[in-house]
Amino acid sequence: MTIGIGLLGLGTVGAGVAGILANPEGRHPLVGELALKRVAVRDLSRPRPVELAPELLTTDPEAVVDDPAVDIVVEVMGGLEPARSLILRAINAGKPVVTANKAVIARYGEEINAAAAAKGVYVLIEAAVGGGIPIIEPLKQSLGGNRIQRVSGIINGTTNYILSRMADEGAAYADVLADAQRLGYAEADPAADVQGGDAADKIAILAGLAYGGRVERAAIPTEGIDRLDSRDVAYAAQLGYGVKLLAVAQHLGADAVASGEAPHQLLDVRVHPTLVPKDHPLAGVHGVNNAILVEGDPVGRVMFYGPGAGAGPTSSAVVADILNIAGIRQVSGSQAQAPLDPLLAASSWRQCRLVDSSLTTHRNYVRLRTTDEAGVIGKIGSCFGQAGVSIQSIVQFERSAEAAEGRAEIVVITHDVQEAQFRAALGAIEALEEVQAVAACLRTL
Amino acid sequence: MTIGIGLLGLGTVGAGVAGILANPEGRHPLVGELALKRVAVRDLSRPRPVELAPELLTTDPEAVVDDPAVDIVVEVMGGLEPARSLILRAINAGKPVVTANKAVIARYGEEINAAAAAKGVYVLIEAAVGGGIPIIEPLKQSLGGNRIQRVSGIINGTTNYILSRMADEGAAYADVLADAQRLGYAEADPAADVQGGDAADKIAILAGLAYGGRVERAAIPTEGIDRLDSRDVAYAAQLGYGVKLLAVAQHLGADAVASGEAPHQLLDVRVHPTLVPKDHPLAGVHGVNNAILVEGDPVGRVMFYGPGAGAGPTSSAVVADILNIAGIRQVSGSQAQAPLDPLLAASSWRQCRLVDSSLTTHRNYVRLRTTDEAGVIGKIGSCFGQAGVSIQSIVQFERSAEAAEGRAEIVVITHDVQEAQFRAALGAIEALEEVQAVAACLRTL
Repeated sequence: MTIGIGLLGLGTVGAGVAGILANPEGRHPLVGELALKRVAVRDLSRPRPVELAPELLTTDPEAVVDDPAVDIVVEVMGGLEPARSLILRAINAGKPVVTANKAVIARYGEEINAAAAAKGVYVLIEAAVGGGIPIIEPLKQSLGGNRIQRVSGIINGTTNYILSRMADEGAAYADVLADAQRLGYAEADPAADVQGGDAADKIAILAGLAYGGRVERAAIPTEGIDRLDSRDVAYAAQLGYGVKLLAVAQHLGADAVASGEAPHQLLDVRVHPTLVPKDHPLAGVHGVNNAILVEGDPVGRVMFYGPGAGAGPTSSAVVADILNIAGIRQVSGSQAQAPLDPLLAASSWRQCRLVDSSLTTHRNYVRLRTTDEAGVIGKIGSCFGQAGVSIQSIVQFERSAEAAEGRAEIVVITHDVQEAQFRAALGAIEALEEVQAVAACLRTL
Repeated sequence: MTIGIGLLGLGTVGAGVAGILANPEGRHPLVGELALKRVAVRDLSRPRPVELAPELLTTDPEAVVDDPAVDIVVEVMGGLEPARSLILRAINAGKPVVTANKAVIARYGEEINAAAAAKGVYVLIEAAVGGGIPIIEPLKQSLGGNRIQRVSGIINGTTNYILSRMADEGAAYADVLADAQRLGYAEADPAADVQGGDAADKIAILAGLAYGGRVERAAIPTEGIDRLDSRDVAYAAQLGYGVKLLAVAQHLGADAVASGEAPHQLLDVRVHPTLVPKDHPLAGVHGVNNAILVEGDPVGRVMFYGPGAGAGPTSSAVVADILNIAGIRQVSGSQAQAPLDPLLAASSWRQCRLVDSSLTTHRNYVRLRTTDEAGVIGKIGSCFGQAGVSIQSIVQFERSAEAAEGRAEIVVITHDVQEAQFRAALGAIEALEEVQAVAACLRTL
């Protein structure tokens, strides 16, 4: 039984998928039952890294979706439109979809899932998060017995590459970014990566799966690495921390509701540069690698690690999804409206709500620029104490340039504290005569 | 639709599974459709960590398997018999099986899989390897598009705990083992762990899945940590390596065959203490944690990390398997002889053969006890050179006790070399007058 595949897009990932399908030997035998039937490209004349019969190619993506020989639609063109419309078109035609498009899923996941549920088709997204790392399927198929407490991860390879080099070389952000762009590790327009938007897309998807309900993408507090000072990376290293752009989704419980209403699961979801203790599993993730740590009851802490991007890893994930659909099709047969496997379909089963970030608690790293005189540390400590903020350490860093000018840099790491309380303490500290500026403020694991 | 679960065994894992089933809230909603129908225990009067209705308990495991209310049989009693017979009995009754029993699967996997295929039922084994780490399901359901090149891992928590403490404290093997036994991290009879048999069971299972064919458990060269000298752990650390008990399964290609015959996949599968470079992802796996690194084309390197044992993690894996069966049952309905999902069923699709270990190539660490005189290092180097063995480093370690007696310790790390060649060089070195003994010989990643 051959299963027809239609590809929307033949960039690096699309070509990678086509390459796997054309060379099934040594892979799972089910790969040999997949046949590429139609491929939508932007430009028919462009040279390709993979050889395809010319009659497979078309510039009309709708023709791929509509082709009766196409049983599964694979969207690897990227961008919001026409990707979203094509995915919905495939669903409405009763065809399962595989997509690597985190931007579409993070924004239109609800619409797409509702359409898929109504039509009884799968929309699988393993490649949308973590490149080649199996994380979507394990969350759906291997951790369902758990109450998930936290999902945290390094899920943007570009920023991890930049941060790794900043730490290793003591280099400035702008210099490393320019070099990363030259080497192809960062895009010409790096905004989605360095400002954290890509990581926010991905954590919205992971949180939705981990907690069984939609997470509002637009409400996720997101801070990138684009304003990170290399001296904070250096100070963090001296204090025993690495700096990573972490995406975190934590379960805080459920809200109280009037009887008869279902409770909302309260989540703290966010993206920001974070100090990670050197002995934490995420601290050892370097370069363009990604890692996702899942904490649940009763499993404890499990981590998934690997290449977070690239044609090879991403096409591995796309093919995994295709195989899952092909595999389950052998169970259901080709009968229309066969029931879905609820694990693989992963429809929402409860409601989630992001909590007001002023109510969340975190550990913090603060760098203050102060005058270099006796008693400053005491005053800063008192401000935190009066606001009820417990401190783990206060350290004054010596830099000859600052010392010569009578200035000092003081770094404070707090224990867990409610955001509102912490902000109150910072306000009092900023009002101190000796404090010139709150120069940096980062979260700490 | 309620799905009836029968438990064989109510030890820590069985009680963990029963606890999850009894408290479905906050877990995947499919957990709520599972109902514990019958539980086989050894002793009805023993106190349990989980409360169960007394009428569920029986001392007759066959009664659990045969109970018409039991749809899925969960074997968590351990040991070879009667576990094997009960698994086969369940299969013959057309009931899917979930088992955490690596010993049975490593030894009788072929018999069990053949019976399962004939009857069209699933036998799922996520809990058999890596405790709570999703590794079996990702290998089956998320990496099928790859040609797997190597699976390597730390898959025995007891030995990793012992090795971590030997490295951290410079302690002797026997002392740490005794302490581990006292703390419950090692069994009273530690043989299966410390001699490598447990890891060999598990790598046989992983290799069978990764390469799609049965691996002969009895043929796996297995060396434990029970003869490991703490000074080799210390020397390795000075050279930039950690020592880990690794299980490795490497694909070496396929043999040439007469036309018409299917080729055998040639595998190098083994278990032994191994020097792992400090910057390798497996080097950072400490204590009772496990980690499995899978290398494939095109995915690259992905790693799965987490707690390798314990009631919580293992019951998470058992419930994952139950959910997979329950999920797919919604697709197939309860019709008899529905086709299996080939990914989840994971039947063999090619033939594998372990190669003669003298033909495999490895990097090696050798510690030699020699007389402390000029020219020894040169002679040792010449022996390796004459045998065509390329050397990465030769280092003489100074120990005051040995130096006072006119003795020295010399450590050699080779580049990749064929085992037979390496053994020839060692023979020549042992014949040198200045060499008193080849004191230790370990593999290096």
